[in-house]
Amino acid sequence: MPPEDGTFHSPGSLEGTGSLGNRGDLFDPACPTRRLLDRIGSKWTAMIVIQLHDASPGELRFSELKRRAAGVSQKMLAQTLRSLEHDALVARRVEGTTPPRVHYRLTELGESLYPPIAALREWAESNMKTIDSASASASAS
Amino acid sequence: MPPEDGTFHSPGSLEGTGSLGNRGDLFDPACPTRRLLDRIGSKWTAMIVIQLHDASPGELRFSELKRRAAGVSQKMLAQTLRSLEHDALVARRVEGTTPPRVHYRLTELGESLYPPIAALREWAESNMKTIDSASASASAS
Repeated sequence: MPPEDGTFHSPGSLEGTGSLGNRGDLFDPACPTRRLLDRIGSKWTAMIVIQLHDASPGELRFSELKRRAAGVSQKMLAQTLRSLEHDALVARRVEGTTPPRVHYRLTELGESLYPPIAALREWAESNMKTIDSASASASAS
Repeated sequence: MPPEDGTFHSPGSLEGTGSLGNRGDLFDPACPTRRLLDRIGSKWTAMIVIQLHDASPGELRFSELKRRAAGVSQKMLAQTLRSLEHDALVARRVEGTTPPRVHYRLTELGESLYPPIAALREWAESNMKTIDSASASASAS
């Protein structure tokens, strides 16, 4: 029976069987790293992290984020921000006005996520046309 | 009315209003880049790309991929491979044995996706423990 502390290593693990130290293991089905990857790899997370990074050290309000991440629904934006806040990537500040104003900014941890997300975005934007053409010819054949 | 050729720029676009050239635009709701980002940012895509990269220049069979991406279902693996093939990131080779053997490898385009995916994985694995602790204390408060 696998232990329940998340240190179980699958046969497919690349990390060996030693101590995990500070690392998770994407290839360990018992490790939450793969769920984390799905959260940070989503388009809305990417768009929010990029906008907050660009606004830094300033903050952005909910309505500003909604405008900048054109196409996001109120519900999806609220959900993604809650998830980012729960993961300690985004900090939320409520201003005691009437009605209250809510401001968002990246935490230090959230800022550290910017470079890999920017690299993924750069790849996606640079290769979108190539992939579009490839998909079109695959569908046509 | 926005044009239907995918060149419409939202007010939130970071790319200005010039020609897109070879680039998509994540912040353009009419551009397929954001759907592409969701596909390449998923945990299964990451796991398959990493395994095929590690096996390169060799190929991997379906059953080998299934074993190495522990926890993936038959259906999800087949679906993800089809999507990667459709995006021209993975090439499929059918060997005419009985039963036929199917081999997978990264295309050149697929190899170019490895560095950003490896960076995202590195970030997720390195920060999993920090995020776990942060989430636990957020839930407890």
